[in-house]
Amino acid sequence: MDSSQFRAAAHSAIDQIIGYYDTIEDRRVLSGVEPGYLKNLLPDGPPVDGEVWAEIQKDIESKIIPGITHWQSPNFLAFFPANSSYPGILGELYSAAFTSANFNWLCSPAATELETIVLDWLCKLLNLPECYLSTSPNGGGGVIQGSASEAIVTVVVTARDRYLKMLSAGAKTAEEKEEIIDAHRHKLVALFSDQAHSSTQKGCQIAGVKHRSIKVPGSPTSNYSLTGPLLRQKLEELNEQGLEPFYLTLTLGTTSTCAVDNFAEIIEVLKAYPQIWVHVDAAYAGAALICEEFQHLTAGFENFDSFDMNMHKWLLTNFDCSCLYVKERKNLFDALSITPAYLRNPFTSSGRVTDYRDWQIPLGRRFRALKIWFVMRTYGVFGLQHHVRNIISIGEHFASLIKSRPDLFTIIVPPAFALTVFVVNTVNGGGAEERNKLTKTVYESINEEGKIFITSGVVDDIYMIRVIGASSKTRKEHLERAFGIIVEMAEKVRGEKEEYKNADVGEVGEVQLRGL
Amino acid sequence: MDSSQFRAAAHSAIDQIIGYYDTIEDRRVLSGVEPGYLKNLLPDGPPVDGEVWAEIQKDIESKIIPGITHWQSPNFLAFFPANSSYPGILGELYSAAFTSANFNWLCSPAATELETIVLDWLCKLLNLPECYLSTSPNGGGGVIQGSASEAIVTVVVTARDRYLKMLSAGAKTAEEKEEIIDAHRHKLVALFSDQAHSSTQKGCQIAGVKHRSIKVPGSPTSNYSLTGPLLRQKLEELNEQGLEPFYLTLTLGTTSTCAVDNFAEIIEVLKAYPQIWVHVDAAYAGAALICEEFQHLTAGFENFDSFDMNMHKWLLTNFDCSCLYVKERKNLFDALSITPAYLRNPFTSSGRVTDYRDWQIPLGRRFRALKIWFVMRTYGVFGLQHHVRNIISIGEHFASLIKSRPDLFTIIVPPAFALTVFVVNTVNGGGAEERNKLTKTVYESINEEGKIFITSGVVDDIYMIRVIGASSKTRKEHLERAFGIIVEMAEKVRGEKEEYKNADVGEVGEVQLRGL
Repeated sequence: MDSSQFRAAAHSAIDQIIGYYDTIEDRRVLSGVEPGYLKNLLPDGPPVDGEVWAEIQKDIESKIIPGITHWQSPNFLAFFPANSSYPGILGELYSAAFTSANFNWLCSPAATELETIVLDWLCKLLNLPECYLSTSPNGGGGVIQGSASEAIVTVVVTARDRYLKMLSAGAKTAEEKEEIIDAHRHKLVALFSDQAHSSTQKGCQIAGVKHRSIKVPGSPTSNYSLTGPLLRQKLEELNEQGLEPFYLTLTLGTTSTCAVDNFAEIIEVLKAYPQIWVHVDAAYAGAALICEEFQHLTAGFENFDSFDMNMHKWLLTNFDCSCLYVKERKNLFDALSITPAYLRNPFTSSGRVTDYRDWQIPLGRRFRALKIWFVMRTYGVFGLQHHVRNIISIGEHFASLIKSRPDLFTIIVPPAFALTVFVVNTVNGGGAEERNKLTKTVYESINEEGKIFITSGVVDDIYMIRVIGASSKTRKEHLERAFGIIVEMAEKVRGEKEEYKNADVGEVGEVQLRGL
Repeated sequence: MDSSQFRAAAHSAIDQIIGYYDTIEDRRVLSGVEPGYLKNLLPDGPPVDGEVWAEIQKDIESKIIPGITHWQSPNFLAFFPANSSYPGILGELYSAAFTSANFNWLCSPAATELETIVLDWLCKLLNLPECYLSTSPNGGGGVIQGSASEAIVTVVVTARDRYLKMLSAGAKTAEEKEEIIDAHRHKLVALFSDQAHSSTQKGCQIAGVKHRSIKVPGSPTSNYSLTGPLLRQKLEELNEQGLEPFYLTLTLGTTSTCAVDNFAEIIEVLKAYPQIWVHVDAAYAGAALICEEFQHLTAGFENFDSFDMNMHKWLLTNFDCSCLYVKERKNLFDALSITPAYLRNPFTSSGRVTDYRDWQIPLGRRFRALKIWFVMRTYGVFGLQHHVRNIISIGEHFASLIKSRPDLFTIIVPPAFALTVFVVNTVNGGGAEERNKLTKTVYESINEEGKIFITSGVVDDIYMIRVIGASSKTRKEHLERAFGIIVEMAEKVRGEKEEYKNADVGEVGEVQLRGL
């Protein structure tokens, strides 16, 4: 493909993409293909001789798009969103054009420096304390990771090594140091509430450390938020068991219900446990921090060690773009750099030159800062705030519609960050099991019908439906239409009592959310 | 940015990218900016109101491109390549347009299914044994990872957990199982030759296991390849120390010299150690396996557990695109899935539906299979083979030029996979230290001049220059020009004897390569 063939191919691709976005609402939001559909459509191997673009492009519409679930459709009300945007796409285009491995500053200084700059911009926008800025006296800073889950593995490993280093600081020889570490490694335990995202559990599996979850009650006690007393109790329990807590994930916007942990209480409790690394997982809801009305939530964050939010969820920046901030980048280098301390470049240590390979698990990295830069400049701060506020107001409108039908629905926890979580009421006050069966049948029937795509979850043995619309195309009318679809299905299923009573309420919903 | 603004912006971006590629040779290959250059050019924060694309685009040429090191330039002869291509760029474009989190099959069936299909295509192209195909009776398969280093962390963790599971298989209770694991965890040790890429060391740091490297001699004994006897000796030594080897990285094309480990000998030795997970890191040179003349190298690979090569290095597919194959995907699920075995979907276990989140560290993932599909179809098998063979023949031509000046240069190891590694000879038979100083001064002066960009390395206390040209634009004339530049600089520096004698041969070169 030469330059002029590329120009023609790219123009045609751009037209196809625009056409896709302009008609996305007309497509069935959840792909309806059967497992293995594509294998039947493609040959057993690549062609021996090359093909022209027109041949390849034809197959995108006929073979690929039928297998796409349309996350950018305003009828996508499932999981959390994964916002795309036109400036975000342009960012990916240039990133691909400037392809380089970017493992250190020299690989492409612009890739490193733009990342530091736009992450400092974002740090201020999110109202994070100054200690997370690259310019802070303590040596903090941000780095783009692929996902919030990758960020969590990174900080669990870093926390583990900071703790082991602290324990073995007094060792006089390398052997003695190793002995101390070997004697303690299996006692380390990471903590998180049972509402935290499953990626902390996975991060602990990878880091090879034990983990314990803290059960948090629902409405009206604490609405699935981790509290100070619950944390203190667990810490004392672990102490009695001879285990050594070294890490805690807190959540700003849990997956199931968008709960926010009680940061103020937790900060008080943790004063007695300075060895614990505290990470705030704000993967989805962190985006709301760009609006003043949510900025009170970051009070006291200077007491924590790291914070992560995904611009690729709700801030119009194409996946992947998870923004991780740490208070002391030195801890990352200690855990992840393979350059021995005595060989480290003084420029790197001083922060004059940043080698992001030492801030992450992989070595190479893409030039992802470009898309943040394009998105922030195209929308401006006002544009991004408008998007967040608009989505929240549409979410509140949807919640008020659900509330307007107390005969059909019960909202289990206060709606938050545009997420509404509810159950379907049984006709004559049936028990919890019957309500679960009914809710599950309604949920599954809606997705089977395919006009909208929603998710469910099981929390505290309650089977719940989750609805969240947060794409760039989401308007009030889309959620009104969704409400109509949900009402209609709920009424229909409630009328077919015998049918839903036979539903098998396994843990399907929970499993689906765990994967989110 | 609406559809028509996007069309105009994208067309203008495409023109800029074509212009960039068409003039890439005229640019100084290594960016000449000073650390911190960009901060002085950009404001302290994003604009409050959005800006138009024309404003943003202007800044790409004036502020970003000066800070780009041009990896696609034919004057880029450093590290290993990171091939971009026009069809690869189109793949990234569509991937961004279809943005979704892709953590499981349902997220977008096409993203998962195309990945399985093109990785099976590649498996056959590379002449890997059938056990690595997704359709193999043993349940193998491939997955796209971000980098070879990420792939290594993934398999180290998987190997660790397979080994611990094996040890604790006889346990009757969960407590007993935990006790066995706690008692062994600190005895586990991973192995690699001292010529293996540093990412195994980093992978072990992340997995929290010990690691030992095996020193391998250079020319003419084993040319930096790991041999059977060296491995056996190390295994016996570890046994005496009470350590438990559970993992070994072998390399097909080492970073410093492109050495290939002696697979046949190693397979013999490992017959006595079936518990050891063997991973083949073929990050760069693995691409050559698509040509028949290199396919003898995969003989016996059915004895290994995993294999990884980067299409994003030498196979014209934009970074990131590291292709990891495992013989038994079940081992990945056991280590990385957070879904308990009793909740696993039978479709997933049977391979009918693939959830790639359980094959990797992060949860979410991009739709990277598209770019492989576009690249394979655009070039065809012949086109890809032609690219590899062309680069190898150009590399051999360069090596012959270096050999034609035995007065100036000595080749330390046989050139391989288009990489030539050599030293600069001192004038009157000076010692090793003087040769190191001379070689280093020549190397640094060439990069400072900036007409070409090369890398250096220190192996066995020998300071070496590495030259490898492998972009899609690389022609014979580019390496001839590079040869001329190197000769001229070598002659110049040799004439300024006093100057290079004062050179400080620290471990700069080694550090640079360690980062690669």
